[in-house]
Amino acid sequence: MTALFRISTLLTLVLFPAVGSAEDQQIATVRQKLEQQYGATTQRIMRETLKGNEAWQKMHELCDGIGFRLSGSPGLEEAIDWAIASMKKDGQENCRREKVMIPKWTRGKEWARMESPRKFDIHMLGLGMSVGTPPEGITAPVVVVHDEESFAKASDQMKGKFVLFNNPMPEYTEERGACYGHTVRFRYGGPALAAEKGAVGCLVRSVTARSLRSPHTGSTGYQDDIPKIPAAAISTEDADMIQRLTDQGQEVTITLKMDAKNHGMVPSANVIAEYVGREKPEEIVIISGHIDAWDVGHGAHDDGGGCVMAMEAINVLRKLKLRPRRTIRVVLWTNEENGQEGAKQYALDHANELANHVAAIESDSGVFQPQGFSVQHIDPAKGKIAEENLAHFFALMNRPGLTKIKSGWSGADISHIKHGELPLMGLIVEGSTYFDYHHTHADTLDKVDPKDLTDCVATLAAISYLLAEIPGRLDEPLFPDPSLN
Amino acid sequence: MTALFRISTLLTLVLFPAVGSAEDQQIATVRQKLEQQYGATTQRIMRETLKGNEAWQKMHELCDGIGFRLSGSPGLEEAIDWAIASMKKDGQENCRREKVMIPKWTRGKEWARMESPRKFDIHMLGLGMSVGTPPEGITAPVVVVHDEESFAKASDQMKGKFVLFNNPMPEYTEERGACYGHTVRFRYGGPALAAEKGAVGCLVRSVTARSLRSPHTGSTGYQDDIPKIPAAAISTEDADMIQRLTDQGQEVTITLKMDAKNHGMVPSANVIAEYVGREKPEEIVIISGHIDAWDVGHGAHDDGGGCVMAMEAINVLRKLKLRPRRTIRVVLWTNEENGQEGAKQYALDHANELANHVAAIESDSGVFQPQGFSVQHIDPAKGKIAEENLAHFFALMNRPGLTKIKSGWSGADISHIKHGELPLMGLIVEGSTYFDYHHTHADTLDKVDPKDLTDCVATLAAISYLLAEIPGRLDEPLFPDPSLN
Repeated sequence: MTALFRISTLLTLVLFPAVGSAEDQQIATVRQKLEQQYGATTQRIMRETLKGNEAWQKMHELCDGIGFRLSGSPGLEEAIDWAIASMKKDGQENCRREKVMIPKWTRGKEWARMESPRKFDIHMLGLGMSVGTPPEGITAPVVVVHDEESFAKASDQMKGKFVLFNNPMPEYTEERGACYGHTVRFRYGGPALAAEKGAVGCLVRSVTARSLRSPHTGSTGYQDDIPKIPAAAISTEDADMIQRLTDQGQEVTITLKMDAKNHGMVPSANVIAEYVGREKPEEIVIISGHIDAWDVGHGAHDDGGGCVMAMEAINVLRKLKLRPRRTIRVVLWTNEENGQEGAKQYALDHANELANHVAAIESDSGVFQPQGFSVQHIDPAKGKIAEENLAHFFALMNRPGLTKIKSGWSGADISHIKHGELPLMGLIVEGSTYFDYHHTHADTLDKVDPKDLTDCVATLAAISYLLAEIPGRLDEPLFPDPSLN
Repeated sequence: MTALFRISTLLTLVLFPAVGSAEDQQIATVRQKLEQQYGATTQRIMRETLKGNEAWQKMHELCDGIGFRLSGSPGLEEAIDWAIASMKKDGQENCRREKVMIPKWTRGKEWARMESPRKFDIHMLGLGMSVGTPPEGITAPVVVVHDEESFAKASDQMKGKFVLFNNPMPEYTEERGACYGHTVRFRYGGPALAAEKGAVGCLVRSVTARSLRSPHTGSTGYQDDIPKIPAAAISTEDADMIQRLTDQGQEVTITLKMDAKNHGMVPSANVIAEYVGREKPEEIVIISGHIDAWDVGHGAHDDGGGCVMAMEAINVLRKLKLRPRRTIRVVLWTNEENGQEGAKQYALDHANELANHVAAIESDSGVFQPQGFSVQHIDPAKGKIAEENLAHFFALMNRPGLTKIKSGWSGADISHIKHGELPLMGLIVEGSTYFDYHHTHADTLDKVDPKDLTDCVATLAAISYLLAEIPGRLDEPLFPDPSLN
């Protein structure tokens, strides 16, 4: 039985609580009890948030006011200071930096040009963490491959050349989603694959299904025993053109010039702020996003939205004076994009209190209509309980479209505490356009619908309140009475 | 009665020819006669074209092989030579250049940057024919307006500043179309409006409803008695950001740097090729597109597709050995984008034979599913006859979706012969995405669906054959027998 099927069953039972099996009866009773205890408050949180909140103003300050905030840049540290000041102003408690050493990589000047059969500018963005080229650039012919099979076939022709990994992202569908995880594999792994075969540079088709000549950057990786070669994403249009030319038997030669540099580790910080719990302040519910963003676009969807949702969710609760039983901790992770050092450091620094973390939420899929949560748990049985309880919460919240519960992945940052015995939850939002903007110059505030932002804040405020307020933990039976569970 | 309504009536009559009024009976009889005389050949043209043709290869050679072809550039002259050589190779007759003097404008290096409240690159493209800035650029505050009313209101604050015309293009709908004509008015007229109020530069929101930080260039204009100020299009994202900042009371300062230059007139040419008529070679049906394109993107939709459709339409007919009664003349206009000197010169050079032009078609709305034709005629009564006859042709062609007939506009080039007594026809294609690519870096071959290209070639081949083959002209009754008309 899939989680989705379970939910639809459960939702049906809300509508027809009087009929069905003993199990159905039990669910109906839990729902009734939840409704009695938390219904009015949950509805109030949603209603008041939807009436008006300060999330859009926060987005404006972060995206239009600061914008770029790549790890190691002044913009990132400014954004961290801004977030702390903003939450202090909102009256949050324990607002602070928690120091993290993070990698500093700079893009520098960069360009690419097709030299033959025709001189054309190639629209590109160097990949994050890539090495640069010599000052004069690298000029070499291109070998085009699509997948592992075509790579293997052409691997004896790569010496001294560029390898272009031209694997297209398929169109988004509701069923299969965006296929990001699958498509992105060459962006991270391509340089080592190509260098091992003697290539002098690596080009990767941008990971997107839609493009207006828009290159998409992102992190790349190397292997210690294989030479590090420069790596860049090129627009899907340029990849298609090179493909068409080579398909017609023409040799395509390209110059790639990148001043990219790795500068080692520099200090940064995770941002922490809290709404301290009234009964069990030591027990913690994390709500989080990552404060760093690429050095293109203004990180509106990735992940300004995730940060602002968390900041505004506790702001809403505090304004409503709904101090919950446990502490809600906002964490704005540093360096998600190219290292996740923020999350790693948090796992180290907070190892002793990890047992007191009762749940952690990350929002890092953009600001669109909220649809549900993914759930990751070290203990599958407890994960299942968490999912069932989430379905009860959704019934209580009664928001149109909020129905999805998926097992497995949660979020890039919180998955660094996956050794902890807590449910890790990723906010699922409508996903059809996120990867159009992801890691591009186009990730700007105009792409965010204020209504969606408010919906996300309301969802996060209500869920985090419930997680921090219910007597037990999300991954435990909701009510102690054994006849109910 | 609208043209569309007329067509749907006529199409109904094809299905039920035996019932209806005397007028309906007459239409049914015309259709039957058309079907008897031209049905098999028309169907054969469509069928054989759809089976396979060389249009895609021609698009590849033009877009991937030459690309940029702005007026005055070596690329344009190369494209002209290529088109002539290509049509000669296909066996077309009278392939030639017809000399035209056209303006040469070069973009040079250009950039824009927001200086305050935050340093951000502005994604921009200088407008074609704009003057440049001083070498150090122009730095000034920005006044944002949306329309004539807000312009008038703010006109006393423009001295020494940039004016940003931030009027958004609405989303495309089937009913209202793209609203290009309305939205583009400030791109052409903005600089003179702003300069008259003392502005030092003009910024225009890119004319598009969808953007991935994609500036859209295009021609701009000046007035003789008003100072010429530099003008650039900025991305909708940047326009929105400046709007949000000024809405919050912040002063936005921008530096614009453009090395744009006008170099006066240089020689170029319209491209001509013919399938000479077997009975009335002196009577001419023009099929046309424009061979010039902007210096960004590869002019795939605008208007490589229009050129290639015309080139391939006569290629298809010649291969089928269907030499028509009259001459089909392919014209590839030079300098449509920033002057239309090609069309103007043609009107002068061919003034004496204009009376022998029986119809002219232009395709300049991109390569998408063909839906019909717009019809422009100096004589409304004759225009009406042309529209009715076109509806008969559509019935004969029986292509799904080919149903639209609109009165009024035809095409930018052929409208320069609107003083002639001939029907001017613009190919109408599905229009929901054309302006996403229009005048941008993204107007590349990948945006063209080969199936749509083939559909357009088939439509153009069949229509131009019929125009050149029927005994009378399109704007005359189809059959001489008065009882039938």
